[in-house]
Amino acid sequence: MSRITDQLQFIMEADKIKNIFRKSMISDGSRYENDAEHSWHLALMAIVLAEHAAEDIDLIKVIKMVVIHDIVEIDAGDTFAYDIQGHEDKREREEAAAHRIFGLLPNDQKDEFLQLWEEFEDMNTPEARFATALDRMHPILLNLANKGEPWNKYNITYEMIYDRNKQINDGSETLWQHVLELLDECRKQGILKDKIQAQ
Amino acid sequence: MSRITDQLQFIMEADKIKNIFRKSMISDGSRYENDAEHSWHLALMAIVLAEHAAEDIDLIKVIKMVVIHDIVEIDAGDTFAYDIQGHEDKREREEAAAHRIFGLLPNDQKDEFLQLWEEFEDMNTPEARFATALDRMHPILLNLANKGEPWNKYNITYEMIYDRNKQINDGSETLWQHVLELLDECRKQGILKDKIQAQ
Repeated sequence: MSRITDQLQFIMEADKIKNIFRKSMISDGSRYENDAEHSWHLALMAIVLAEHAAEDIDLIKVIKMVVIHDIVEIDAGDTFAYDIQGHEDKREREEAAAHRIFGLLPNDQKDEFLQLWEEFEDMNTPEARFATALDRMHPILLNLANKGEPWNKYNITYEMIYDRNKQINDGSETLWQHVLELLDECRKQGILKDKIQAQ
Repeated sequence: MSRITDQLQFIMEADKIKNIFRKSMISDGSRYENDAEHSWHLALMAIVLAEHAAEDIDLIKVIKMVVIHDIVEIDAGDTFAYDIQGHEDKREREEAAAHRIFGLLPNDQKDEFLQLWEEFEDMNTPEARFATALDRMHPILLNLANKGEPWNKYNITYEMIYDRNKQINDGSETLWQHVLELLDECRKQGILKDKIQAQ
């Protein structure tokens, strides 16, 4: 029974991502969303949008990646996409977290999850590129729904978003073209500024 | 572009399950969990526990089922597992919701999602039986973690849990045996009562 005991211990440890909040709000703008909600939404996006992947993908691998990709934040915390300083030691902090948390699993699953997480982070395979495209696109959809509240709060400009999210194109040209249209719509509506405003 | 537009409209409509709260608390007992968090956790459980399924399963199908199974609650609301009256018209309310919400998708995906959801509800395939086993097991794990707070609040007894959850056995004998051990542990600790206490 010890294999199940280890697996359940990991599953319950992972529960903690329900208390890790991101910088994106849920679509009605009532509160910030947490990592569990975000990861569920990415799994749904992977299922619905798989046909738009730039390359042939193994969907189950993409889903595994998005379901587990934020578990490392239990130890390492959420690093805001536009936090340059936070990104300096992000990989190091997250590597240590991955070893501790995936290390709760039986060895074969520990190895599989570590490998999946590293593949996602390295963005060198079709699955990792598509999973990254979804991960980048998701906050844009939420921000659009709640009129760019977090963009405004954190002084995020069109240029910053363009620069960080152009990698969506590597996972799906179709999705990137659609995101560009959505961002243009945001600029027109004044939800998204081109330059940082003087405070 | 209208295919993507429809797909994204569905994806953003589904965001509303982040506001549908269940009768189970997250593991630290600080608050009730919502359907998005629950669905993410089931996807993780499916990935980690797949080897314990009673029959051969197509894992991607199980994951699709658990990721979409609660979307109908956007219209139909959450029906508490032990609410006998609520279950009388549950299927009817949820069928209508499934047609409206999955109906936002392009036709081929609408048909696929409706079929997956009905298969899950009917519990007549190995994938549906395993997905149901996970769905039943999940609140037991959470209740155990927070010392049975919701069981106590809603006067849920061992017999009620046994009766509702014995179906776990159809999806996985191994998981059901483990759940029985956990429930026995809860009784020993006094977290779970055999009979309803006089108020």
